[in-house]
Amino acid sequence: MKNKLKYGIIGSGALGGYYGAMLAHSGEDVYFLFNKDYNYVKENGFRVDSCRGDMFFSPNEINAYNSTSEMPQCDVVIVALKTTNNHLLKNILPPLLHSSTLVLMIQNGLGVEEDLAQYLPNTPIAGGLAFLCSNKVGAGHINHLDYGKLSLAMYNDSPHNILDKVIEDFRNSGVTVESMASLAEARWRKLMWNIPYNGMSVALCTTTDSLMNNPSSREIIRDLMLEVREAANAQEGVFIEEEAVENLLYATENMTPYLPSMRLDFDAKRPMEIEYIYSRAIAKAKAQGISMSKTTMLRDMLQFIESTYRDNTII
Amino acid sequence: MKNKLKYGIIGSGALGGYYGAMLAHSGEDVYFLFNKDYNYVKENGFRVDSCRGDMFFSPNEINAYNSTSEMPQCDVVIVALKTTNNHLLKNILPPLLHSSTLVLMIQNGLGVEEDLAQYLPNTPIAGGLAFLCSNKVGAGHINHLDYGKLSLAMYNDSPHNILDKVIEDFRNSGVTVESMASLAEARWRKLMWNIPYNGMSVALCTTTDSLMNNPSSREIIRDLMLEVREAANAQEGVFIEEEAVENLLYATENMTPYLPSMRLDFDAKRPMEIEYIYSRAIAKAKAQGISMSKTTMLRDMLQFIESTYRDNTII
Repeated sequence: MKNKLKYGIIGSGALGGYYGAMLAHSGEDVYFLFNKDYNYVKENGFRVDSCRGDMFFSPNEINAYNSTSEMPQCDVVIVALKTTNNHLLKNILPPLLHSSTLVLMIQNGLGVEEDLAQYLPNTPIAGGLAFLCSNKVGAGHINHLDYGKLSLAMYNDSPHNILDKVIEDFRNSGVTVESMASLAEARWRKLMWNIPYNGMSVALCTTTDSLMNNPSSREIIRDLMLEVREAANAQEGVFIEEEAVENLLYATENMTPYLPSMRLDFDAKRPMEIEYIYSRAIAKAKAQGISMSKTTMLRDMLQFIESTYRDNTII
Repeated sequence: MKNKLKYGIIGSGALGGYYGAMLAHSGEDVYFLFNKDYNYVKENGFRVDSCRGDMFFSPNEINAYNSTSEMPQCDVVIVALKTTNNHLLKNILPPLLHSSTLVLMIQNGLGVEEDLAQYLPNTPIAGGLAFLCSNKVGAGHINHLDYGKLSLAMYNDSPHNILDKVIEDFRNSGVTVESMASLAEARWRKLMWNIPYNGMSVALCTTTDSLMNNPSSREIIRDLMLEVREAANAQEGVFIEEEAVENLLYATENMTPYLPSMRLDFDAKRPMEIEYIYSRAIAKAKAQGISMSKTTMLRDMLQFIESTYRDNTII
């Protein structure tokens, strides 16, 4: 592939906004879908403050849209929505797709590619995991604090060459990027962090460092990781080594205290990513005869907690 | 036994204050140990508002003490403290005991009699469970809202006749009272309610009716009950029938919305009865090879929650 790819960014928030800006900043053709911030960006432009160099796009420099029906067909559509909005994709995606468009799902949890493949059976689909510390701090304004590695892999058997080009484009834009052998294993590995820390930071209304410093909560965190590892290793083609649990506990202890994304969603009374981070993992474990007892209890608590603010939720 | 028994009440709060008042009101010799309220009661008297008839004891009518070293030796000492204060009993009890004093532990949880028997090996010990809805609403002022059944049983092999007299005295005072065949079974049966509802009302900061109305929390409640039942039935001489779980769920759904005592302790930033309600049950289950997975997670969460306010705690 010699020609430039057209990139569509579905969800130009802390994640999509950052990666889209990196690509656009390095000269790629990027088309951003905005939601609430569309009018602000059309008038004031789009700003990404980053530890690796600030970026600003004036209204003339950014291809901002508030509906995919106005956007051109893209070669790569990067889905960077919260999974709580995935029910919208059925309507959002079709205008962007030509016969060989690659849809790249950069989301947490399990099963997002499966769901998409059900109604787009002939579309090449890839999955991605972002290891990123980035927040939306205001309208059209992202603050990128640290990290940013992207791990990408094809989900189905479509030709791999377009994903290779995407990886090259990200690398040229300054994003650390890797191609993964197993998308499933990568998703389960990330769940080993997301399942304990996201949920427990909400259930106990606390931060990662407090969870690690208290022996009782640390025990829960470890037990949840062990459950995720057991469920993961029961899946075909997934193997997570025993040391991964202690390594992840150690790494988290040495992280800067951090509010996981689910805690931020909780604080803002936004829907939480319970379905794809918890329920899908519990279902995949159950299909292999494994019950994730504490994970299930945590999921049920999160559902209770979400129900207490559901009426005020803006979707 | 024809003579009147001398009763000592250790902990004249919502529970001990109510049962002691019932006995005193019916003419028994009752000696009350007060803590913070002692000066108030000496000046103003002691009041129990009750759905079954109000009671008031003027300063001259109530035998109020603030130290057991001033109290007479008693024939029956009723321990009605929160179990979080049981470490004090070693110092509190000895002045009250003669060679055949019966110590009656009206407390929740498991193991309170075992602990006592370790340092009072020759003392007759009984256990009791109170099914009572009663609150302390002010200094020297109890409000008894509903219920009040007492279930009593000997813990060790001491002669039963003094407990029979206690049961007679309670019955004469108007308290519904029963003698139980198995103290252990009665304690486990009460844990089937206390383990799910006390802890979950704290962990989710909610009430019994909300826990029952939400399908997710209801599922947790049921799972916790099933764990308690399994652990109970692994103990010698304990059998809880399968229908007990659904019966208890149904009964709780039909209760007036209620703040369990642990939730009241949490709201007041008092220590919670985690040790005797949770940790002892988990240990007794483990001794039979049974892991109470969700109960353990809930216990660990409660320990984390308590640690967040421990510095401000008044013991």
